[in-house]
Amino acid sequence: MNTSEFRRRGKEMVDYVANYMEGIEGRQVYPDVEPGYLRPLIPDSAPQEPDTFEDIINDIEKIIMPGVTHWHSPYFFAYFPTASSYPAMLADMLCGAIGCIGFSWAASPACTELETVMMDWLGKMLELPKAFLTENAGEGGGVIQGSASEATLVALLAARTKAIHRLQAASPELTQAAIMEKLVAYSSDQAHSSVERAGLIGGVKLKAIPSDGNFAMRASALQEALERDRAAGLIPFFVSSAALVAPGNKEDMWLHVDAAYAGSAFICPEFRHLLNGVEFADSFNFNPHKWLLVNFDCSAMWVKKRSDLTGAFRLDPTYLKHSHQDSGKKPAFNIFLTDGPFHVSFQHWQIPLGRRFRSLKMWFVFRMYGVKGLQAYIRKHVQLSHEFESLVLQDPRFEICAEVTLGLVCFRLKGSNKVNEALLQRINSAKKIHLVPCHLRDKFVLRFAICSRTVESAHVQRAWEHIKELAADVLQAERE
Amino acid sequence: MNTSEFRRRGKEMVDYVANYMEGIEGRQVYPDVEPGYLRPLIPDSAPQEPDTFEDIINDIEKIIMPGVTHWHSPYFFAYFPTASSYPAMLADMLCGAIGCIGFSWAASPACTELETVMMDWLGKMLELPKAFLTENAGEGGGVIQGSASEATLVALLAARTKAIHRLQAASPELTQAAIMEKLVAYSSDQAHSSVERAGLIGGVKLKAIPSDGNFAMRASALQEALERDRAAGLIPFFVSSAALVAPGNKEDMWLHVDAAYAGSAFICPEFRHLLNGVEFADSFNFNPHKWLLVNFDCSAMWVKKRSDLTGAFRLDPTYLKHSHQDSGKKPAFNIFLTDGPFHVSFQHWQIPLGRRFRSLKMWFVFRMYGVKGLQAYIRKHVQLSHEFESLVLQDPRFEICAEVTLGLVCFRLKGSNKVNEALLQRINSAKKIHLVPCHLRDKFVLRFAICSRTVESAHVQRAWEHIKELAADVLQAERE
Repeated sequence: MNTSEFRRRGKEMVDYVANYMEGIEGRQVYPDVEPGYLRPLIPDSAPQEPDTFEDIINDIEKIIMPGVTHWHSPYFFAYFPTASSYPAMLADMLCGAIGCIGFSWAASPACTELETVMMDWLGKMLELPKAFLTENAGEGGGVIQGSASEATLVALLAARTKAIHRLQAASPELTQAAIMEKLVAYSSDQAHSSVERAGLIGGVKLKAIPSDGNFAMRASALQEALERDRAAGLIPFFVSSAALVAPGNKEDMWLHVDAAYAGSAFICPEFRHLLNGVEFADSFNFNPHKWLLVNFDCSAMWVKKRSDLTGAFRLDPTYLKHSHQDSGKKPAFNIFLTDGPFHVSFQHWQIPLGRRFRSLKMWFVFRMYGVKGLQAYIRKHVQLSHEFESLVLQDPRFEICAEVTLGLVCFRLKGSNKVNEALLQRINSAKKIHLVPCHLRDKFVLRFAICSRTVESAHVQRAWEHIKELAADVLQAERE
Repeated sequence: MNTSEFRRRGKEMVDYVANYMEGIEGRQVYPDVEPGYLRPLIPDSAPQEPDTFEDIINDIEKIIMPGVTHWHSPYFFAYFPTASSYPAMLADMLCGAIGCIGFSWAASPACTELETVMMDWLGKMLELPKAFLTENAGEGGGVIQGSASEATLVALLAARTKAIHRLQAASPELTQAAIMEKLVAYSSDQAHSSVERAGLIGGVKLKAIPSDGNFAMRASALQEALERDRAAGLIPFFVSSAALVAPGNKEDMWLHVDAAYAGSAFICPEFRHLLNGVEFADSFNFNPHKWLLVNFDCSAMWVKKRSDLTGAFRLDPTYLKHSHQDSGKKPAFNIFLTDGPFHVSFQHWQIPLGRRFRSLKMWFVFRMYGVKGLQAYIRKHVQLSHEFESLVLQDPRFEICAEVTLGLVCFRLKGSNKVNEALLQRINSAKKIHLVPCHLRDKFVLRFAICSRTVESAHVQRAWEHIKELAADVLQAERE
């Protein structure tokens, strides 16, 4: 495909995308296909000679779309929101064209520098403590990770390295393995599986701390666990939490605050209190690619001390090196630069070497919405979840299972898990809306998550009418 | 931005991208900026009210482009190629619009299923052993990872889990830490830093095995290391290699073959022999996002036994669960499905939970180029590297430092490292072309990597003339 054909096909694709977004409400939110549906529809190997673009674009509706779960349909209330906005899509087109791999400052200075400034912009929107920003030329800074899972893992590994160094400095005879055997990380028993996975990968124990009535980690329970484990000779070194717990007695603990979904809301002053105490954290992470209109992937992570990350990962093969480490001289030109506040090498902040120019998406979105536009977007979603909550509360057959603070409503039919499983099954078989369940302790609960950028009150109302009808059927069937 | 504005702005962006690609040769390949150049050019916080799209698009040339290293310029011969093609960019636009997060089959069936089939297509292009493909409903399969670093890490973690389970089954009294202390992974002393990082993250020892004259791992040296380490009570469990070594005596070893860059060439029959022996590997990985025209990120990984991966990572929170594990019944509807050959959950194959619909890029590229078009592309690059090699060989002042097999030429001035460092510095200060160095053992070497999709013989000739001129200056300066 030459450039002039790209001009033509690119514009056709823009229209295809615009039509898709405009018509998404008319598509069934969850597909009808059965597992294995796709393989028989396409050849079993790649063509030797090129297909035409027309062939491919026709196959999108024939082969791909019938198997798509439409995450951006206003009837999608499942899992969690995943961000989608036109400014982010435009930025991604530019990102693909520039196509640099920004692992170091020299590999594409704009890529590293815009990321540093955008992370400061975002940090200020959240009113993060200054220690997390780069602009003050302090020790902290922000980086875009691919996902909250990676951010949690990176934080845990940094904490592990720090703990091992500290303990070996005090007792040089200790082996890494002897230390790792005793390291314990903690998270809430309601935490995302990413913490469990980080512990598994890092080869350390992970303990789940009982949560309170709001399903948040109970500070007193954490304190008890720390004391018990220390008394047993274990070494607490890391706690990952959605909110702040136990800032005291943390001198040797790494505190990671993970607000993957909720973090976006903290740009609104009325929700910022949920982040209070972040000043005690060593690292903080949330996903603009969930709720802040920046398409996947864009997980924002800040640390107070960036040398903690780079210390855990730093490896310098010559072909990626930009500093003459054996020369004390001022570097002669840009490609040979030592790291510093203005020219970090993000390769040392993350697990992959490669990285896209993802800060372009933040730049486009923040500028084209403005802070006020982003706040309005968050508020609209929160208002819709409260609207759904009040609908549920008006129906005595149903109950709300957790306090509704942001865009998620956990609800269920009063009664058995079985009747709720039956209701969910009817909902997802009807495919007019899409929901997924969760367990809150031993209760099977339906999650109604406000997800789509285009969801409005009318969609929420229609969803509730539909749920009520199906609930009546389920309750009827139960009585029979 | 509403949909009708997106139609307009999207088409403008298509033209911007097309203009950028068309004019890239005229841009200086490496930027003039100094560290910290960008921050003073933009506000220190996000705007409260929206900026216009015009503001932003104007700022691209004013603020971003002056700091971009143009990886797709035909004068970019640095680092390694990163793929860029129009079909991949078109697919990425569609991927952004669908915007599903395909962590499980149900989360978007098309996303999982197309990936499975595309990994089979690609596996067949490479003539991978059938055991790695999914179509035979065997135990193997392919998955798209974000980077080779992640693939190496995932393989190492799977191997670690397997080794721990095996050893604990034999000796239940062994703790995980006691085993990990003895585990040893091996890679070539010329290997990519990703292996070292994987060992660091996984908390296991990594030993570098001396390489041979072609900078490949020496099989006999590996064998000696294995015997020595086993005799010392250590437990060899993982070897990562660019080519096949020591298939014998591997019963308890995981063999990971990493051909991040070279792998793309194996679609050409004349280069396929470089992959011989892959039938002994447990996992194989290469990056179509390097040299197979599929834009970053797309790292292709295959395993012979997918349960080895899922065994290392499997964690099942309710809200992501699609199987009624306590029920032996046939699932009642699609969202509750056990894993199987047709409905894998790729979340258990990788570190992040989230994942984009990246197989669309493979589908577009494979179909719009056809296998023959892809082969022609590889062959053109290899031919250009040989052309450069022969230019170097014609000049008695220079030497070739490693056998040229694919698209990379390692060369240097005969003489000291200092004179070569001076030459590289002149090259990168002149900024007509861009190169980076490497060390081959104790020699400072210049790497000339054929990178750009649009590089032609004329660019290579011009680059060589330029290098020769600068070399004359350097040698002159040395004599003075």
